[in-house]
Amino acid sequence: MNTFGTLFRVTTFGESHGPALGAVVDGCPAGVPLTRERIQAALDRRRPGQSALVTPRNEPDQVEILSGVFEDKTLGTPIAAIVRNTNQRSGDYEQLKQVDRPGHADAVWRERYKHRDHRGGGRTSGRETLCRVIGGTIAEAYLERDLPTVSTVAYVSQVGDLVASVPALGLTRAMVDAHPTRCPDLAVREEMSRRILAAKEAGDSLGGSIDVRVEGLPVGLGEPIFGKIKALIAQALGSVGAITGVMWGPPDLLERIGQLGTQFHSVKDVYGGIQGGLTNGEPLQVRAYFKPPATLADHAKGGRHDPCIMPRAVPVLESMVSLVIADLVQQMNARPHTL
Amino acid sequence: MNTFGTLFRVTTFGESHGPALGAVVDGCPAGVPLTRERIQAALDRRRPGQSALVTPRNEPDQVEILSGVFEDKTLGTPIAAIVRNTNQRSGDYEQLKQVDRPGHADAVWRERYKHRDHRGGGRTSGRETLCRVIGGTIAEAYLERDLPTVSTVAYVSQVGDLVASVPALGLTRAMVDAHPTRCPDLAVREEMSRRILAAKEAGDSLGGSIDVRVEGLPVGLGEPIFGKIKALIAQALGSVGAITGVMWGPPDLLERIGQLGTQFHSVKDVYGGIQGGLTNGEPLQVRAYFKPPATLADHAKGGRHDPCIMPRAVPVLESMVSLVIADLVQQMNARPHTL
Amino acid sequence: MNTFGTLFRVTTFGESHGPALGAVVDGCPAGVPLTRERIQAALDRRRPGQSALVTPRNEPDQVEILSGVFEDKTLGTPIAAIVRNTNQRSGDYEQLKQVDRPGHADAVWRERYKHRDHRGGGRTSGRETLCRVIGGTIAEAYLERDLPTVSTVAYVSQVGDLVASVPALGLTRAMVDAHPTRCPDLAVREEMSRRILAAKEAGDSLGGSIDVRVEGLPVGLGEPIFGKIKALIAQALGSVGAITGVMWGPPDLLERIGQLGTQFHSVKDVYGGIQGGLTNGEPLQVRAYFKPPATLADHAKGGRHDPCIMPRAVPVLESMVSLVIADLVQQMNARPHTL
Amino acid sequence: MNTFGTLFRVTTFGESHGPALGAVVDGCPAGVPLTRERIQAALDRRRPGQSALVTPRNEPDQVEILSGVFEDKTLGTPIAAIVRNTNQRSGDYEQLKQVDRPGHADAVWRERYKHRDHRGGGRTSGRETLCRVIGGTIAEAYLERDLPTVSTVAYVSQVGDLVASVPALGLTRAMVDAHPTRCPDLAVREEMSRRILAAKEAGDSLGGSIDVRVEGLPVGLGEPIFGKIKALIAQALGSVGAITGVMWGPPDLLERIGQLGTQFHSVKDVYGGIQGGLTNGEPLQVRAYFKPPATLADHAKGGRHDPCIMPRAVPVLESMVSLVIADLVQQMNARPHTL
Repeated sequence: MNTFGTLFRVTTFGESHGPALGAVVDGCPAGVPLTRERIQAALDRRRPGQSALVTPRNEPDQVEILSGVFEDKTLGTPIAAIVRNTNQRSGDYEQLKQVDRPGHADAVWRERYKHRDHRGGGRTSGRETLCRVIGGTIAEAYLERDLPTVSTVAYVSQVGDLVASVPALGLTRAMVDAHPTRCPDLAVREEMSRRILAAKEAGDSLGGSIDVRVEGLPVGLGEPIFGKIKALIAQALGSVGAITGVMWGPPDLLERIGQLGTQFHSVKDVYGGIQGGLTNGEPLQVRAYFKPPATLADHAKGGRHDPCIMPRAVPVLESMVSLVIADLVQQMNARPHTL
Repeated sequence: MNTFGTLFRVTTFGESHGPALGAVVDGCPAGVPLTRERIQAALDRRRPGQSALVTPRNEPDQVEILSGVFEDKTLGTPIAAIVRNTNQRSGDYEQLKQVDRPGHADAVWRERYKHRDHRGGGRTSGRETLCRVIGGTIAEAYLERDLPTVSTVAYVSQVGDLVASVPALGLTRAMVDAHPTRCPDLAVREEMSRRILAAKEAGDSLGGSIDVRVEGLPVGLGEPIFGKIKALIAQALGSVGAITGVMWGPPDLLERIGQLGTQFHSVKDVYGGIQGGLTNGEPLQVRAYFKPPATLADHAKGGRHDPCIMPRAVPVLESMVSLVIADLVQQMNARPHTL
Repeated sequence: MNTFGTLFRVTTFGESHGPALGAVVDGCPAGVPLTRERIQAALDRRRPGQSALVTPRNEPDQVEILSGVFEDKTLGTPIAAIVRNTNQRSGDYEQLKQVDRPGHADAVWRERYKHRDHRGGGRTSGRETLCRVIGGTIAEAYLERDLPTVSTVAYVSQVGDLVASVPALGLTRAMVDAHPTRCPDLAVREEMSRRILAAKEAGDSLGGSIDVRVEGLPVGLGEPIFGKIKALIAQALGSVGAITGVMWGPPDLLERIGQLGTQFHSVKDVYGGIQGGLTNGEPLQVRAYFKPPATLADHAKGGRHDPCIMPRAVPVLESMVSLVIADLVQQMNARPHTL
Repeated sequence: MNTFGTLFRVTTFGESHGPALGAVVDGCPAGVPLTRERIQAALDRRRPGQSALVTPRNEPDQVEILSGVFEDKTLGTPIAAIVRNTNQRSGDYEQLKQVDRPGHADAVWRERYKHRDHRGGGRTSGRETLCRVIGGTIAEAYLERDLPTVSTVAYVSQVGDLVASVPALGLTRAMVDAHPTRCPDLAVREEMSRRILAAKEAGDSLGGSIDVRVEGLPVGLGEPIFGKIKALIAQALGSVGAITGVMWGPPDLLERIGQLGTQFHSVKDVYGGIQGGLTNGEPLQVRAYFKPPATLADHAKGGRHDPCIMPRAVPVLESMVSLVIADLVQQMNARPHTL
């Protein structure tokens, strides 16, 4: 199941060490402004080698649009875009041919598929998420035209046991990108940097959390029962390999869970912008917890991995949430309800 | 979107105060033993009025099978089953006609649908979950025949800020049902009971968490990328109204998130039975966090609500997880991989 | 696969001799006027025992709405409606228990499902089509509100080798229903009647064709490639058991197929209202060919079957086409295209 | 809706004059032998410029596999393959920029999408069908491994009003390809050639029919009601632009429609291999009727079009039918029925 969405749908393909990865977006209407440069800029935010904090695997990740766009506008036809794998140093991985990497899904995958693509993680590689960024960026271009109030911003909210404070509303991606940790909290991000670098040096890794916040959503977005916005965001984020928990609500929600109902419901932000499965007009607030990456220095020193993937995962989560919103906007458009 | 699943699919219908609620299960193979009594027994575990801890709204919830079963075996055709609403005391709700219940989705729902079914929550009511129990019970009957090693058991793991200890493997539903809290921890469940009763008396409510554990799964269950078992369970549980967070892993996962990777990955149970989005042969372990219910005594004393819905939600979560498993088993059957 | 549609979706269930048959319609917006009587009237047009031409199996086929409608308006929630099988004289079929009926799918069905529901055709029975009429009638109620120009009328255009002439535009269902053959051609319908009665007496049967015409459609309805209106109508009609051919275009299309392109394209009605897979604003014109029914007198004199099912199939085909249109209207609404 | 299939699914993309066209196949199991050369050979059968009978638009149509295949075996991951448009002489079409081509969907398309890609037909171009051949060839590679008895062969059965006789069972693609008309009937194919060449010279065009025959299918393939093999084949073929009618049964079925039931059902081949919507073990027999192509010499002499597209459509139809079968085989695998 490599397709996500009902109306605005993305299909992803490509292995980490095959010829190319890519995405096909079906359901984007005609007339939406879209350039190769916009997708490229989004991929550059996810790209390895951006800073000392992330893997040096320096792939240029140049995107090419194959269909669906003409003279910088969408045609209403499927938009296919690919990124070729230019830096396939699979020799690095040759030594791993017979070894299942601890903490990796290698053994499980081999049991199911009767083989393991020893060239790297194959489809289980985090590299697969670049396809989601292609899809999400197209979703954002569409929303920018049809629902320009919407702003989706994710940021690193925890690294190891260092927890950031909650940023004010109005946070922008530029503010998040201003620091290589992609944490907007001035009080902790330098220490986060130091810990990530220390983990890198020690061949170790760090997990934590990313918060996604969407401002400017209309009231009532979401489809009843199995298409609730909270169910679809859960599937969208749950499909990201390293994510191990999803929470809808303010960052301190789990602490408030223990409260009595009278106290819990006395503040409105406790709903994270969702009631009855639909948006309530308040900012949508979601948190995703990340495991520390599994690949450790001694097992894969030839491989080039991240001590902490969260800074690079920020655009991936924004993309997944944008895909959900684009799909639900079309579903809401589809059926005007009247008295 | 009132349908869940790709191959083993459940479609649910019915409002809390309309003539009936029900489910249609499509994709159950022919020849599976299934009786009305089995579905009835499952519904009885979810039913109001089971104990002093839950709402007294004493509906008998008698299920009737309309199709798909002949001489106590499935026919391979869609199985439809319904429960009539016999206790529709909608007069109780008449007073609420013009009032949006605080903490409820009433205002949001009215904005989207241009009306609110004032007879009660309509489709947003927790009563909708009985349809899921019908579907899940059929999924379990199917799995019992085709994958008899599988055992899915949920239990209450937190009430308010009272946290239960982790039960040993081999936990059964009978062990869970032995106490009205559906918490298997002898050390805390009496105190849980007391707190629920106190909240009830005070017109207050309590949240907490339920853990779901599945033993006996084969290795490799799940579909790549958007059909990962963890993504589908997230959607399945995220679609339950009161759930506000989902976590795949052991109960103390969030505390371990802050650890360094070397430490985090040193114990295998940290994966909750899932690696690379597929089952790894270990017990599957998922936790769902619940908000305290929103309806409080002073606003809806006529209505009949639960101070703590978790004891009754246990079979609902088991059902949702069983639906995911049944669907993924069929998807795995569909495509034998070979060398 | 007992569900049809992407956004406006119908799920059907029920065996011909089980407790009930029914349908769940998901995706109908809120606020659409809908009464039980409207669905009943549609079912009465499909019902056995309407005239001497059809099977006397006189089931009242009383429909009951279980959900999704309140005070004669849709709620935006799934609409479930059922018809109980009151006239289950399955004793009539007892003698058939071990006999595969010639021309029937009994042997094929048993090979696949390892059993045959000997109480009658089960899900392969034409009785299943009443579920489609429930779904189609709800689609029509929805279209009446949101696209009131649309008028879908089907009529019998051939019985045996007797071919009717093409009726003028503006044909109504009342005009079609004015004769028990549901053929509007005064010149042939009496002869059609006579032949059907003769076949009935001889324990024989007759096939032919039904034409469906839709006037008042907007330009551009249909989704590219696999969602072309002509592809979806083909699936919709191809799913009806007795249909053995589908043609988009005027009734004499097959004769014109042999023409040179210059001649063929010189008349616009040759497209049947479809170009590039989308409606072109002209009346949509589709023809479905029917096999003569397989059940013959000597094999099933106890069973009660139609010598010619086409008069009763007219509302079924209208329903299937209305379901396609309702779904495509929502898909068109979903994505406004701009310059 | 550019995706076809439930389990074995193909997503197509690309405009006739954009950078590339391609397909992503999701759901092919791992371990299936598949080479670039196999796909290329299939595309060569569909390619323009094969003979004097078809358009000279001589595009090499070189396919490149981007993912899903490693060392000539499928990985179980999505298989993406593309064909670049090297011969984009869009200058030829520049003159058409403001002119809607008669018989084409240009006006309809512009009304819906608010633009027309004047570089050629865009997605409505027949060139889109090469994506289907990519998908269908992968389906055939899969079936060859998992259901090696299956043989799907299509052939031209009518050109203009020249009708071929029915070939014996055991027909192969090589036998069909032995003549540029792809008609196996020695008695008419030379005359067919002459007429096509005459139409070409006159700037005219010809329609007709193609028959598809599948031998070696198991009994019981197909899913009840809306997933009947005949419904899915109808959608599959109905999605091909030039097809204007689909018939399941022997070539002379429409003549037999007028017979009495006793006569009609006296020969078994009248079912075309389908009963109750499932395969019955006999050869599957389907016929598709084609309109003469719309583009005429005087309007598009710069464009390079076919006087008769059927010879090139033969592999397209085989591909669509193979996609349906691959999908249904997986659905049948998914749910073993037992007594």
